[in-house]
Amino acid sequence: MTNLQEMGQKAVAAKYVLQRATTKEKDQALLTAAEYLCKEQAVILAANAEDIANGEKAGMHPGMLDRLRLTPERIQAMAEGLQQIAELPDCIGEVMEQFERPNGLKIEKRRVPMGVIGIIYESRPNVTADAFGLCFKTGNAVILKGGSDAIHSNIAIVKVLRAALAKCGIVEDALQLIEDTDRSVTAEFMKLNEYVDVLIPRGGAGLIRSVVENSTIPVIETGTGNCHVYVDKNADIEMAVQIVFNAKTQRIGVCNACESLVVHQDIINTFLPALAEALAPKNVELRGDEAVCKVLDNCIAATEEDYGKEYLDYILSLKTVTSVEEAIAHINKYNTKHSECIVTENAQTAEQFLNEVDAACVYWNASTRFTDGFEFGFGAEIGISTQKLHARGPMGLKELTSYKYTICGKGQIRG
Amino acid sequence: MTNLQEMGQKAVAAKYVLQRATTKEKDQALLTAAEYLCKEQAVILAANAEDIANGEKAGMHPGMLDRLRLTPERIQAMAEGLQQIAELPDCIGEVMEQFERPNGLKIEKRRVPMGVIGIIYESRPNVTADAFGLCFKTGNAVILKGGSDAIHSNIAIVKVLRAALAKCGIVEDALQLIEDTDRSVTAEFMKLNEYVDVLIPRGGAGLIRSVVENSTIPVIETGTGNCHVYVDKNADIEMAVQIVFNAKTQRIGVCNACESLVVHQDIINTFLPALAEALAPKNVELRGDEAVCKVLDNCIAATEEDYGKEYLDYILSLKTVTSVEEAIAHINKYNTKHSECIVTENAQTAEQFLNEVDAACVYWNASTRFTDGFEFGFGAEIGISTQKLHARGPMGLKELTSYKYTICGKGQIRG
Repeated sequence: MTNLQEMGQKAVAAKYVLQRATTKEKDQALLTAAEYLCKEQAVILAANAEDIANGEKAGMHPGMLDRLRLTPERIQAMAEGLQQIAELPDCIGEVMEQFERPNGLKIEKRRVPMGVIGIIYESRPNVTADAFGLCFKTGNAVILKGGSDAIHSNIAIVKVLRAALAKCGIVEDALQLIEDTDRSVTAEFMKLNEYVDVLIPRGGAGLIRSVVENSTIPVIETGTGNCHVYVDKNADIEMAVQIVFNAKTQRIGVCNACESLVVHQDIINTFLPALAEALAPKNVELRGDEAVCKVLDNCIAATEEDYGKEYLDYILSLKTVTSVEEAIAHINKYNTKHSECIVTENAQTAEQFLNEVDAACVYWNASTRFTDGFEFGFGAEIGISTQKLHARGPMGLKELTSYKYTICGKGQIRG
Repeated sequence: MTNLQEMGQKAVAAKYVLQRATTKEKDQALLTAAEYLCKEQAVILAANAEDIANGEKAGMHPGMLDRLRLTPERIQAMAEGLQQIAELPDCIGEVMEQFERPNGLKIEKRRVPMGVIGIIYESRPNVTADAFGLCFKTGNAVILKGGSDAIHSNIAIVKVLRAALAKCGIVEDALQLIEDTDRSVTAEFMKLNEYVDVLIPRGGAGLIRSVVENSTIPVIETGTGNCHVYVDKNADIEMAVQIVFNAKTQRIGVCNACESLVVHQDIINTFLPALAEALAPKNVELRGDEAVCKVLDNCIAATEEDYGKEYLDYILSLKTVTSVEEAIAHINKYNTKHSECIVTENAQTAEQFLNEVDAACVYWNASTRFTDGFEFGFGAEIGISTQKLHARGPMGLKELTSYKYTICGKGQIRG
């Protein structure tokens, strides 16, 4: 039986060691971990084969099986991910602010690790190495709870990574995996406030909702994306077509894909046919309001439900508006606070949209597909936050840290 | 019956208006609110008299009655608090970072309001004006749930503040009070994720625990303080006595008061008698380990439980250690991550303590009593956070904000 209390205690003991680790020590351990992943590839692939066999026996969907499957190339990519994290700058210890008070107290705000991070995720075993790398680089101990479908793969990967830590003289409990796949263990994990500082769910909407509803540990919600592109009356029509085409079709199963188009009524006769033509080879199903259906023959009538939906499919909802204000109100009503875009040549309209749309990332004349830690230049990504507390939008290494104040005096007391 | 869904919808509508409010509009409304509080003093005092009468009838503790009671001076102080908030700089709209990507995308990280803030607090009616002022200045709509003991006072204060908003042409729903004092309403409020972006509990440990355990809205935990002073072997003995005396006795009922003393064994024979002499006039009860009890006649044997306790009283626990490492381990085991202090003349020992003690505020040669938004120069304070997510330590106006990314392009799409 899993003793989560004991795992929590071990993680806390590890966090105090990790917060003292130097950048060199951490980077060396990451490089060794990368090396070990490649060296122990056969063991990992054998464990993964067991998961795949179980998945096939259980009639797992081919898409799911593909996410679960490891190959030498995918293990290589996991190793390269760790090498890239080793190359990133270490932000721990950075003095974020410093100031002196009239009474002579010298106050510094210093960046520190979060402490112990819990991550709950689904079937992709590459998350195991990835999440470890990001948490470790920022001096955090991590407790992972992966999907039961990938349990053999995860156990093998974690064993290899812990061996690499041991080899480098780093406390192995920097990384722990909950091996018990019983749901009651997950429920208990979400209440481990005494030891875990933050819990990050990575996966589908159902997983995230379950964590938000049941966790008593502070959660960073990484979220679903019902992303809109608003094509203004002053849009460059060709640019608008390209942006919508890219945001809708470049990759359909991702949270920063466009799910809904909002269009100014003044341009529907020119813009919509051009868009429909561009989307035709991709067989994108269009669901629009009355005005849209009048212009496009092959358009289905959209329901209220369509406007709130993250399709993750070749489907696009369309809505006509008479002003940027109406576009903003529509988007703020239906969006998931992820990524939203306006296409316009009018700078004033753009600025209004950028200011008034409530979302982590608001674009002017660019595809929503850029909402990504790598595209933002963070060099890494643990997820896209759709909440407003702590981190919003793409989360890189800094978003896995906290801060402390240090206050130096000469015997000051409060009067 | 309270319709929380409706209140949530009104708050969301208000937040979209407030995010567009100018600094001048907000400051003018705060000054008008201050003016109205003074002008309507009689109405507020009459409502408060009703709460006081009910409290007396119910046999409320005199200390509680005092917290509940309003006077012309206290209303004046509430008004001055709003005036001070009006004078503080407005951080909304500030560009926190800006960078350009190789593909030409220009990314800005802009400070924005959190949106809708919920605050759950206990009997002190002055929190009503104070919390409104801080949330309003940062462009947030706020929903307040005060203690049932203060309900008449809170209703009167909120009515006056909303009248001031109306007078200034500001949406009144920027401030809403849940008037229903039934506990089931509080429970429902804590699940209002659809509308409320963050929930801040202000009050005793029981209230905070209840919110952490039951809220599905992200919470900022403002917390209890089991604060330690560690007196090192290289301490200036006189300075150490003054700091412990101040941190323990200057105000006993506050979260940044010292509750436990950790002392290096090499100096117990000189330091402890000097400290005991200083504390004697305040009748501070001392509870120490064996080594301490050998030096101090009037010391009671401490139990394990003592070291984990926030007394909020004239009681101090004492623990002897043989090294700074042992002091750090003891503090990290028993503290509440609030404020901790080392007294030493040895800079290296101090730096080790500052780095390795896990707390929001770590002091070197200064009283823990300085952990306070005003003492830190923030000009305001909504509470002291003891969690690591979003805000840690004293929370001023900036800690009531979030950010968004704006991304400006020229038609960039993702390849």
